[in-house]
Amino acid sequence: MRPFITGYRVTYADCDPFNVVYYANYLTLFERGRTELFRAMGIPYADIGKMGIYVPVSDARCLYKRSARYDDLLSIESAVQQLKRASITIAYAIYRYDPRELLAEGYTVHAFVNAEGKPRRIPQSIIDTIQAYDGATERAAQQVFSSGSHNTEQTA
Amino acid sequence: MRPFITGYRVTYADCDPFNVVYYANYLTLFERGRTELFRAMGIPYADIGKMGIYVPVSDARCLYKRSARYDDLLSIESAVQQLKRASITIAYAIYRYDPRELLAEGYTVHAFVNAEGKPRRIPQSIIDTIQAYDGATERAAQQVFSSGSHNTEQTA
Amino acid sequence: MRPFITGYRVTYADCDPFNVVYYANYLTLFERGRTELFRAMGIPYADIGKMGIYVPVSDARCLYKRSARYDDLLSIESAVQQLKRASITIAYAIYRYDPRELLAEGYTVHAFVNAEGKPRRIPQSIIDTIQAYDGATERAAQQVFSSGSHNTEQTA
Amino acid sequence: MRPFITGYRVTYADCDPFNVVYYANYLTLFERGRTELFRAMGIPYADIGKMGIYVPVSDARCLYKRSARYDDLLSIESAVQQLKRASITIAYAIYRYDPRELLAEGYTVHAFVNAEGKPRRIPQSIIDTIQAYDGATERAAQQVFSSGSHNTEQTA
Repeated sequence: MRPFITGYRVTYADCDPFNVVYYANYLTLFERGRTELFRAMGIPYADIGKMGIYVPVSDARCLYKRSARYDDLLSIESAVQQLKRASITIAYAIYRYDPRELLAEGYTVHAFVNAEGKPRRIPQSIIDTIQAYDGATERAAQQVFSSGSHNTEQTA
Repeated sequence: MRPFITGYRVTYADCDPFNVVYYANYLTLFERGRTELFRAMGIPYADIGKMGIYVPVSDARCLYKRSARYDDLLSIESAVQQLKRASITIAYAIYRYDPRELLAEGYTVHAFVNAEGKPRRIPQSIIDTIQAYDGATERAAQQVFSSGSHNTEQTA
Repeated sequence: MRPFITGYRVTYADCDPFNVVYYANYLTLFERGRTELFRAMGIPYADIGKMGIYVPVSDARCLYKRSARYDDLLSIESAVQQLKRASITIAYAIYRYDPRELLAEGYTVHAFVNAEGKPRRIPQSIIDTIQAYDGATERAAQQVFSSGSHNTEQTA
Repeated sequence: MRPFITGYRVTYADCDPFNVVYYANYLTLFERGRTELFRAMGIPYADIGKMGIYVPVSDARCLYKRSARYDDLLSIESAVQQLKRASITIAYAIYRYDPRELLAEGYTVHAFVNAEGKPRRIPQSIIDTIQAYDGATERAAQQVFSSGSHNTEQTA
């Protein structure tokens, strides 16, 4: 799947005394990317909740390469990495926008649970929507590449 | 009313690139102080919610005197400043513990509302509990002073 | 002065258990608005620091009218309210974008200090830049109004 | 190594709209535990910085088992898991205090770097201090067990 890109400007609130984004706040950036990815796929988080389904995080990891600094403009790149019966894995890469440089990458695993917190299968409608989005971005990518142009921006 | 004291250790997460507590986080310290004040008075926040009553903030202010720094141990001093028909004002002072130094002071005003968000009178049981706590701490204070000892720690 | 508008999307990270933006986080939104206002005026915060000048907050207040909720798109409107010899006051209003509704308003006062933390006059170059920005936006506003069009969006 | 225990009370500021601690904030709890572990070992973070040494996080992971809720009292258990030439791994487990229940566990890996950000060996004095602390807690543990008493509280 090709990643969805969300922009973000670093504030003082995000930084620690070393003038870099505090390490826990990368997970907040992951949330921001994930939310916009789901909105782009046509499954806003608010709608998932209305179906009586919740997607709590069961596992989160971040590998820190370089520091995001105060006032940096960031690209948060998010993509569905794996769909299982009752869980989904989202992968993230965070880049400084200019000059483009990989700062951090990681993933979050989300269980699908009902209102009582019991695991449940991912609804087929959600699987279909994710796969349709993936297909559409694949076709878009092929057109870009067959026309000979490059799009390094969107390649995670 | 004599203030209730809550201790707090400053983390990197609390600080900004100037190595001082980020200004918005003083309001988080106010919450911490307010929560422990209410627990001490015998009205834990969780119990207020169970009565179908909510106490959203309508006004918050903080005056910044000196900076709280990384790893500082702080005293958050909280006291009920004013009780009205349908609102309560809590005052706060934040001190560096050692050497004792005033860092910030402020207040929050809280409306009493029902589950629909409509203003409502403060229940008499809550007023009585707050006034009983105040009386008890006044009596404790008089005993301390009449015995000739000092308790500068608790004087806001 | 006409306010500068910054957009912001509310995340889970911003919200509290009542599904509304946690009250301290409005001050973080104020920072976001203030930063973009200064950038728009041509005085990015990074440049102020390079001049050996710091602008710590000495007073911050927020009045809460209605709740910003999860996933709301917000308009943060920021404007210079007052320039004194050694301090500046910025005013803020936060609106839900659609339907437009005032959620909160407030201000922050910033002292101008040198690297040792001593108060100092605001440099004339900064005063000139702020007044030039103000004049430019005033002229832009007059053109808008004299042409008979409306711009309610930008009127705080 | 036996874990060092740090207590923590959950605030509204820590929670998300599901009334549970927001997932990124577990990494903030890890920082709180790590700081107190280092202080207990006799190597406060402030002192490491004075040696011109920095210990940025290169990898962080958290596995979420159950939710920490508003007003829960937590035990943050932290221990050195691995010492390498130029990095250290700290492991964490977060428990609800009463009834005791494992909520989350994870680790952080920290590189040792100099002021220019170049990797460097861990100073022998720091290795010695960590190993001495470990030996002391091992001896304390043996005394506890040989005397027939239990200390389930401190077993991660």
